[in-house]
Amino acid sequence: MAFSRRGNEVMVVDNYLHRRLALKHKMPPLVALPELPERCQIWKSVSGYEISHAIGDIQDFEFLEGIVADFKPDTIIHYAQQRSAPFSMKGIEEARLTLMNNITTTFNLIWAVMRHAPKAHIIKLGTLGEYGTPNIDIEEGWIDIEHKGRKDRMLYPRQGGSLYHTTKIHDTDLLWFYVRTYGLTVTDIMQGPVYGVVTDETENHPDLLTAFDYDDIYGTVVNRFVVQAVAGIPLTVYGKGGQTRGFLNIRDTMQAIVLVAENRPKTGEMRILNQFTEQFNISEIADKVCKAALSLGIEAKVAHLENPRLELEEHYYKAAVNKLAELGLKPTMLTEKVLREMLEYVKEHQHKIDKTLIMPRVRWSHALQHA
Amino acid sequence: MAFSRRGNEVMVVDNYLHRRLALKHKMPPLVALPELPERCQIWKSVSGYEISHAIGDIQDFEFLEGIVADFKPDTIIHYAQQRSAPFSMKGIEEARLTLMNNITTTFNLIWAVMRHAPKAHIIKLGTLGEYGTPNIDIEEGWIDIEHKGRKDRMLYPRQGGSLYHTTKIHDTDLLWFYVRTYGLTVTDIMQGPVYGVVTDETENHPDLLTAFDYDDIYGTVVNRFVVQAVAGIPLTVYGKGGQTRGFLNIRDTMQAIVLVAENRPKTGEMRILNQFTEQFNISEIADKVCKAALSLGIEAKVAHLENPRLELEEHYYKAAVNKLAELGLKPTMLTEKVLREMLEYVKEHQHKIDKTLIMPRVRWSHALQHA
Repeated sequence: MAFSRRGNEVMVVDNYLHRRLALKHKMPPLVALPELPERCQIWKSVSGYEISHAIGDIQDFEFLEGIVADFKPDTIIHYAQQRSAPFSMKGIEEARLTLMNNITTTFNLIWAVMRHAPKAHIIKLGTLGEYGTPNIDIEEGWIDIEHKGRKDRMLYPRQGGSLYHTTKIHDTDLLWFYVRTYGLTVTDIMQGPVYGVVTDETENHPDLLTAFDYDDIYGTVVNRFVVQAVAGIPLTVYGKGGQTRGFLNIRDTMQAIVLVAENRPKTGEMRILNQFTEQFNISEIADKVCKAALSLGIEAKVAHLENPRLELEEHYYKAAVNKLAELGLKPTMLTEKVLREMLEYVKEHQHKIDKTLIMPRVRWSHALQHA
Repeated sequence: MAFSRRGNEVMVVDNYLHRRLALKHKMPPLVALPELPERCQIWKSVSGYEISHAIGDIQDFEFLEGIVADFKPDTIIHYAQQRSAPFSMKGIEEARLTLMNNITTTFNLIWAVMRHAPKAHIIKLGTLGEYGTPNIDIEEGWIDIEHKGRKDRMLYPRQGGSLYHTTKIHDTDLLWFYVRTYGLTVTDIMQGPVYGVVTDETENHPDLLTAFDYDDIYGTVVNRFVVQAVAGIPLTVYGKGGQTRGFLNIRDTMQAIVLVAENRPKTGEMRILNQFTEQFNISEIADKVCKAALSLGIEAKVAHLENPRLELEEHYYKAAVNKLAELGLKPTMLTEKVLREMLEYVKEHQHKIDKTLIMPRVRWSHALQHA
């Protein structure tokens, strides 16, 4: 929608993986959304612009190849990933699905582009989680290493905290190999956790919104805390709550992708950008949600849970985030106003909250317990 | 055989992938070898020891799981990889086979071990090619990075020169993730190109030898040069020939694996070792083969070919290789005697050489030429 309203010809390809998994694992979004064809029609009625679509799985190379050959895109935004860390840690089938889906979609995309649109700019959604939580500053993709009196610029060493994050490292390695071998043009945006509901394009129609997930598997932390506050259950902070991440508003994800598409890297370049707006630890997020809730008359509490994940709960964290600002990104901050908007959206749909979905069901040690 | 003759109970699992690809792509080894069941029988008649075997594909998880659950191995040596770089660069089908085979076998092995033999020591064959040719010293798996006044010990940044090498980087990331999450015990041996024909176990029977591949896709450089010298065709040095790698004798691969198995890392450790004996560039290898050939009365010549690969032809190369020496490895050097043994073995089978198999058929830029 962001590209369409700027006058671009846009095509969306979806295999409904997220929806199918949500059904199978009983983790519906807070508000049910119409399917893609209906959403395209609504968009047309709201904006006057047409978005074409195809329902299919880009793990099927021939399907994808046909689309790329016909549509000849200038820019491809690659979102076709299983992108939940807890899902990837649930069991062998979920792990396998994540690994296979994520590597196959990227591989097929690379080959479809090489064959039919070699000049296309591939924008891949990465994650800051690829870097993990190292004890040195995180740079944007590359690091200058001085070692035993010699120097080189190398891919920043990556170490993800879940199988999902590890598959994103695989993607980076795969794209970087094909970029330097065949001159593909790629931007990899390494994003932190996203919060928020509304973008410029979706505020005019509730059926155009993004799915608001709040369960333990799909829901990211701000969403979960907001739902817990509204539902009158304590905000579940995992462990000490000192886990620090860089967060961003959903409006800024759209802003970033448009900026990146309109400012292509050089042909044959693999450009890697980090994106987040503010760093918080989990306890700070909980405090902010409690404070915003109180301003709406909701008294929220915090409960520390045993951490279901394997992660450092207190650690150094400093990540560079300069390149998007240089392209002109105007950051949206996590203000009390933004949190109040989220709380109000959830309150409006309060009767739909299923409280049983929020407590963590997936433990990182799960596989061994069942061994 | 090396483990069997030391009194261990040994089982071999093979899906004949290497043989099937050799047939399909018409690249037979110099000497045809009997299949696995017959080789096990010959071994028994020669040594008195039994080696059990199963023919099947460990991409089939249930097949692998059954074997691990029944056999309950203490040590697993993971060779189940498509391990030819040129093969992985041939076209989309070969690339896909390499990517899928290599990631799936490693993933299945990890889960079979987690479920049925969580204390087993996984020995994975890696490759020095994962590191590429950086401008700083290559360390054994990990590097201490000092950056902006802070320090961390991180996975050495990897950048492989082919899709095959990239899949080995995937393996490393996958194993390292499951090691630190579930406490698996892994040794990753990063080997350079291997040369040689005979080991202590195979010298007593020609049908126990390893396949001697000399074609452009399976054959490594020393094998190819030896065959070219015997066949009276010039030794094909790719480009300037300044490409430097660390080489090792096939006897030392066996020595290393036995040493590594007999000296387990700590439970829950991912130990990464580099292995090569001597560094040479390709021109130096060609000179050595010419000299050894001359001592047998064969006059060999060198021809510089346009490089079919994308790689630096002159570069810094210094890789650490201390840990195997600390375990007691006694290196075998690439002496004139060793090369003469190889030349004599090939001469004995000279009539079987197919000269059409040696010139490079796969160019790294192949995919784009056909786009």
